[in-house]
Amino acid sequence: MKKTVLRKTIDQMEKVQRLNLINSISGYKSANLIGTQSENSSNLAVFSSVVHLGSNPPLLGMICRPATVPRHTLQNIESNGYYTINHITESMHQRAHYTSAKFEEEVSEFEACDFQEEYKTDFLAPFVKESPVQIGMEWVENIPIKVNGTLLIVGEVAQLYFEEGMQEENGELDLNYGKVVGISGLNAYHQVNKIAHYPYARPTEVPNFEDSDS
Amino acid sequence: MKKTVLRKTIDQMEKVQRLNLINSISGYKSANLIGTQSENSSNLAVFSSVVHLGSNPPLLGMICRPATVPRHTLQNIESNGYYTINHITESMHQRAHYTSAKFEEEVSEFEACDFQEEYKTDFLAPFVKESPVQIGMEWVENIPIKVNGTLLIVGEVAQLYFEEGMQEENGELDLNYGKVVGISGLNAYHQVNKIAHYPYARPTEVPNFEDSDS
Repeated sequence: MKKTVLRKTIDQMEKVQRLNLINSISGYKSANLIGTQSENSSNLAVFSSVVHLGSNPPLLGMICRPATVPRHTLQNIESNGYYTINHITESMHQRAHYTSAKFEEEVSEFEACDFQEEYKTDFLAPFVKESPVQIGMEWVENIPIKVNGTLLIVGEVAQLYFEEGMQEENGELDLNYGKVVGISGLNAYHQVNKIAHYPYARPTEVPNFEDSDS
Repeated sequence: MKKTVLRKTIDQMEKVQRLNLINSISGYKSANLIGTQSENSSNLAVFSSVVHLGSNPPLLGMICRPATVPRHTLQNIESNGYYTINHITESMHQRAHYTSAKFEEEVSEFEACDFQEEYKTDFLAPFVKESPVQIGMEWVENIPIKVNGTLLIVGEVAQLYFEEGMQEENGELDLNYGKVVGISGLNAYHQVNKIAHYPYARPTEVPNFEDSDS
């Protein structure tokens, strides 16, 4: 049996209930720390909205609400043009979650949340040393989503670092190997296990589902 | 030890290696089936780019490359204005993956991939009956991402259905309870287990990380 929630009910919900419900309905989300640099301080913020935009050129997007929490991240990206995306693991999620606390502007979340800053050649933003996947991003543009005042921040991959052993023969990274976590809703962190890997799907090679998928 | 891959190397990679690598670097992704309706046929397509845009009004986005595979999905959304987002579970992932095969236009992936269509009152697109979370979406707009010709499809939640028992006291859905899976790269499906749930983060309530996070 399913519960029905129509739009009118969503609009009339108590605010925190609605936040928790709607933030959970898209499915599992990526768990990343965004590293940036201002004139006075480094900055680190947890994001669950990083999304693949294309592989050639290599482009990633992320959603940002300008008026609220990650405003230092946005300001820093706009002013220096570089940022880093760092994967969160099973041993990092608690510290990563607390980067979302509204610290004073001069406080670095690297220090407040016990992460090590790492600087690499030719790159003006800090990486998280502990992360098994570190991506150096060059800002392309912010695309406004006018209907609710959010932004899609678009960037190109400039540098990529990952643990030796994570890459599979076909080129992809084994995120399980790196103990990367997923997020659901606003506050839940998940351990992840691969259960299937399929070939590129062709209409002539569709399996007999009655036998296989259970 | 980490492996370094600079942008120049990514640009020179063999195409399939680059596709697999760059599609895997954003982290875990949501696993959804998008249901649409054309004049002649229903349509179903696997997507891993559904992203939360806001909760009031309740808005979700997804990334679409107009020139390639999910073109029927895009055409149908633009012509009738409605679509559904349906979560993929541990018993659905193989069938869901094969919706990405390029079937002829008159073939419904519901039939080809053995899913049951479900129609609900006041809604012009088909839901996937098997899904524990079904979202009826009303199209708002397509936002062009000019740098690579992709689109961000923006929609409002019009109707929401989920299995009784999935909703927690704070309002959010327990996706583990629904046996919802996650995706990495282009072809890998993952089973997911919650390992932590934290309160809203306040600077005055940051834990002592040395004791807790291991």
